[in-house]
Amino acid sequence: MSAVNHQLRLASRPVGAPVASNWELTAEPIPTPRPGQVLVEVTHISVDPAMRGWMNDRPSYIPPVALGEVMRAPAVGRVVASNSRAHPEGCWVTGLLGVQEYALSDGSGLLRIDPDRAPVSLYIGALGIPGLTAYFGMRDIGHARAGETVVVSGAAGAVGSIAVQIATIEGCRVIGIAGGQEKCDWLTEGLNVDAAIDYKRADLAARLREATPDRIDVYFDNVGGEILDLALARLAVHARVVLCGGISQYNATSRWGPLNYLSLLTNRASMTGLIVFDYQDRYEEAIDQLATWLGEGRLIVREQIVKGSIDRFPETLLGLFAGVNTGKLLLELG
Amino acid sequence: MSAVNHQLRLASRPVGAPVASNWELTAEPIPTPRPGQVLVEVTHISVDPAMRGWMNDRPSYIPPVALGEVMRAPAVGRVVASNSRAHPEGCWVTGLLGVQEYALSDGSGLLRIDPDRAPVSLYIGALGIPGLTAYFGMRDIGHARAGETVVVSGAAGAVGSIAVQIATIEGCRVIGIAGGQEKCDWLTEGLNVDAAIDYKRADLAARLREATPDRIDVYFDNVGGEILDLALARLAVHARVVLCGGISQYNATSRWGPLNYLSLLTNRASMTGLIVFDYQDRYEEAIDQLATWLGEGRLIVREQIVKGSIDRFPETLLGLFAGVNTGKLLLELG
Repeated sequence: MSAVNHQLRLASRPVGAPVASNWELTAEPIPTPRPGQVLVEVTHISVDPAMRGWMNDRPSYIPPVALGEVMRAPAVGRVVASNSRAHPEGCWVTGLLGVQEYALSDGSGLLRIDPDRAPVSLYIGALGIPGLTAYFGMRDIGHARAGETVVVSGAAGAVGSIAVQIATIEGCRVIGIAGGQEKCDWLTEGLNVDAAIDYKRADLAARLREATPDRIDVYFDNVGGEILDLALARLAVHARVVLCGGISQYNATSRWGPLNYLSLLTNRASMTGLIVFDYQDRYEEAIDQLATWLGEGRLIVREQIVKGSIDRFPETLLGLFAGVNTGKLLLELG
Repeated sequence: MSAVNHQLRLASRPVGAPVASNWELTAEPIPTPRPGQVLVEVTHISVDPAMRGWMNDRPSYIPPVALGEVMRAPAVGRVVASNSRAHPEGCWVTGLLGVQEYALSDGSGLLRIDPDRAPVSLYIGALGIPGLTAYFGMRDIGHARAGETVVVSGAAGAVGSIAVQIATIEGCRVIGIAGGQEKCDWLTEGLNVDAAIDYKRADLAARLREATPDRIDVYFDNVGGEILDLALARLAVHARVVLCGGISQYNATSRWGPLNYLSLLTNRASMTGLIVFDYQDRYEEAIDQLATWLGEGRLIVREQIVKGSIDRFPETLLGLFAGVNTGKLLLELG
């Protein structure tokens, strides 16, 4: 156990895409847990699009990361010193541990995880925030029903790849939109979606039209931008748009709005925002269901793991916006 | 009874704002009802923003008016010849009778109305499509609850002026947005809304912010454009946006989208389109409730009546887009 805790702290707020100098690497002595506290050695750090929003100094669903504060991140780790019966030494936990090697916690927001049920890294992926987001988005907001047509953007990403599979399990006809042939091949061959569309190829509108002869009942949006507009133009009557993310807009310095929003009116459709934290009291139910599907082989997961120290976090996050990842992108320390 | 039926037929499709030459005045002999049919003498013709959409050659919630077809319009009239027991001679009816002096009907979509319960013209206003739209929008989509903050745009219009009053009846704090001091005075003094905002004055954003210290739980949108964006920026968590219309966009030749749409995401809010035709099986319940409130003096209505022949329809419709009307705009024939 190193005597030093390395941390990545927010040093400045990005304008447009983040740059490495938006963070500062700091080192401090590893803290000692006080009564009720535990010390967690972080092993896996999540890298998610939503983190870009947390760097802005704007009120949102969660306070901004303050300048000088350790960068917020979901992570997984092992308790290495404990003054809490709920989280004894040696147990595995997940929570917003931050981009640092060691995290002190009073146990609030800390979830104990079972390393025998699934690899621990999945608890920041398919069994963590991304999986839970896909689960509640597709079921509780999308209300995807058997026989309906479901379209998911960012379909090869951490959330999208789970969302398409939940829709398939529900008995829907599923179309995934992703960037590049390789991701599309994984969607059709690896995840068995009914059709995959590479948004980087020309004629996206025509291909989406062909793939949705009965129009779109559920559109699960992770990207915003032109793809959202094309999906709006293809909505079926009483369609549900699950507004999960808008990665195409997070680094934008000029603002954009969906030109086809009045399609919601003519089709009596809805567009509803999803923040997974609203479903905290049902996490257990959902994790259990996702883990069951995983065990049955009905849920396939892929992880794109960057191994290294926490100073690789900035470049890894930037890769996310460049679309380098297929499946869940994460940083494994050590 | 004139021997001739004058009709206004769609002659060409508008680009941007309609012009008089988009319609053609025609005359033909008054038809004779066949078995099962009735002949209605039209007395009051509705003038609504939605009509602009019906003139476009685009698939929508209702087929476009065909070139050469009588212009579609909700209207009220009296049965002057009947071969139907459901609608005997002398009874009053409402339905999509069109912009013409006489309409032949087989009874489908024809609703018999009670002239003793309310003035017949109200059946194309507060007791017709506009009132029903406000009723189902505020209750079934907005779910306006006592104590919540409700904002309505186009609040002095046919739908908006009913919507604000239903929200008041539900026990909400109600803010109306309208164009001009006179409309705002009517909202606060005539309809007792809690605050009225004149969107033509400067500093709309600041005034909306001041009027909504607890943010907005229900935004009932009739206008789109900048006002929708300002409302999105003020949404409360779990807010509902009722997408009822977008009059600012109907004549636009360039397209616009709500720049603040991601506020739906961060606030877990929804935006849902409303087409009143979906609620046809509950019209009776709603008309009864609206008529009761009217009788109790809890619902105040204002009509802006243009008297003349059907050739005044084009200028009257254009007035709607110029915002000339306070309350329900309609054309009274004769």
